[in-house]
Amino acid sequence: MSAPDPALLSVNTATVRKQWGLAQAIAGCARHGIRGISPWRDQLREMGIEAAAHAIRGHDLTVSGLCRGGLFPAADAAGRYAAIEENLGAINEAHALGARCLVLVAGGLPKESKDIAGAREQVREGIAAILPHARNAGVPLAIEPLHPMYAADRSCINTLAQALDLCDAVDPHNQGGLGVAVDVYHVWWDPQLAAQIRRAGSARLLAFHICDWLVPTRDLLNDRGMMGDGVIDLPRIRSWVEQAGYTGFHEVEIFSELDWWQRDPDEVLQTCKERHQKFC
Amino acid sequence: MSAPDPALLSVNTATVRKQWGLAQAIAGCARHGIRGISPWRDQLREMGIEAAAHAIRGHDLTVSGLCRGGLFPAADAAGRYAAIEENLGAINEAHALGARCLVLVAGGLPKESKDIAGAREQVREGIAAILPHARNAGVPLAIEPLHPMYAADRSCINTLAQALDLCDAVDPHNQGGLGVAVDVYHVWWDPQLAAQIRRAGSARLLAFHICDWLVPTRDLLNDRGMMGDGVIDLPRIRSWVEQAGYTGFHEVEIFSELDWWQRDPDEVLQTCKERHQKFC
Repeated sequence: MSAPDPALLSVNTATVRKQWGLAQAIAGCARHGIRGISPWRDQLREMGIEAAAHAIRGHDLTVSGLCRGGLFPAADAAGRYAAIEENLGAINEAHALGARCLVLVAGGLPKESKDIAGAREQVREGIAAILPHARNAGVPLAIEPLHPMYAADRSCINTLAQALDLCDAVDPHNQGGLGVAVDVYHVWWDPQLAAQIRRAGSARLLAFHICDWLVPTRDLLNDRGMMGDGVIDLPRIRSWVEQAGYTGFHEVEIFSELDWWQRDPDEVLQTCKERHQKFC
Repeated sequence: MSAPDPALLSVNTATVRKQWGLAQAIAGCARHGIRGISPWRDQLREMGIEAAAHAIRGHDLTVSGLCRGGLFPAADAAGRYAAIEENLGAINEAHALGARCLVLVAGGLPKESKDIAGAREQVREGIAAILPHARNAGVPLAIEPLHPMYAADRSCINTLAQALDLCDAVDPHNQGGLGVAVDVYHVWWDPQLAAQIRRAGSARLLAFHICDWLVPTRDLLNDRGMMGDGVIDLPRIRSWVEQAGYTGFHEVEIFSELDWWQRDPDEVLQTCKERHQKFC
């Protein structure tokens, strides 16, 4: 398989979040010739949405996705309402940035709850509630299935099949504006992965996130690997998303307390570029 | 839902392995009126298989399963052959103990490999190779799907659907002696769980393992919770296995470096009994 187009590389700012604020990350991506960026909402608030949009436009970067909306399940109706309001605000921010999508991390079990089926139903209701506003704003919603080890506390949507079932339930006629974000870290193990990527097709494939799965993994949350340092067959998975018609960014998202967050962020970005060419 | 039959409680000796050797665990279960036990092969070797079988029979305990066979994938043919030989030995030990099943943990990726589909194929070949001997010995083989967070290094069989597909591939006419071990820790998050337990039915449901998923989970391997301390809806899952026709043991298997392995093992067994009645 030939190396990927370097112009498709995007960097999720979480990859250097311990070293850089958003303004530095924007300038850093531009300096390294990285064309895509994916900021987080807390960083946007800190920098100011207008300043961020201005800087991103000024450097001619594309926002491959805004992190993040979702987190729908709540213990009561007031909590569910607040989550929907929060998501409407996130859609507005994504619109202001011209983001390719708003990434949705579903949310886990409400406090004290053991009802995962109920939480999943709340996610469906939440997405249905915000989809009209997202369509009006021209912001596609990308449901990101998270690894099953996050089912309790971060996302009760845990496989690509389940995320696509959810898309089909909320948007049965595939009217657009709703799809999935495929992050290799969350789905690489799934025996159904190839088939579900095919099923998603270009209409539902809104984002493609890359990193690697380390052996051993020392922490459930913040021990992701740089591409090439783990066991994920990245070229194979890229071939599947490309065969399904995906032509968008390859977004690097690495949470790494012990390694990449300890390094010079310019070295991190340089390594992202090299590893993208060599191992993806 | 009514409380489970206390006579169905079994304890996997890993639950007290830091405190007790196998002889102590056997005596401990008997002393607490626990009728089932599930030993590990390393402990069997230490105690001696004949002594262990004698002690287990002497206390009139039932071996709900022997831990463990499997670990099939290897980097070369010699490694795969050695794994099969090892499994034939495990079948003989399970036979000597009158075990209800031999639990199979598939194994992960061979060293340096990123080919998870290939590893899965090796697991299929390994199980097919040992099934005739298992049938002759009257030892059912229970494929235990492991949580996807163990896909790289412990088991490339990660969902109940996948384990059942594997059963169907190796034993297409359901001739017996091959099925699955359902451990709630590994499968509780799966949106297909109820449907796949139904699909398994009594013919394929060979073991049912219980514990709980803690929030937060501090370690990928050794931070399992006691029943009632986490987020798993145990009575609901038990209702599914019972509706599918399962009438066997409820085996407690808890790896817990920070909590239960630090406690008095008699307290641990007493707690297993109480929690089994109260939360399962």
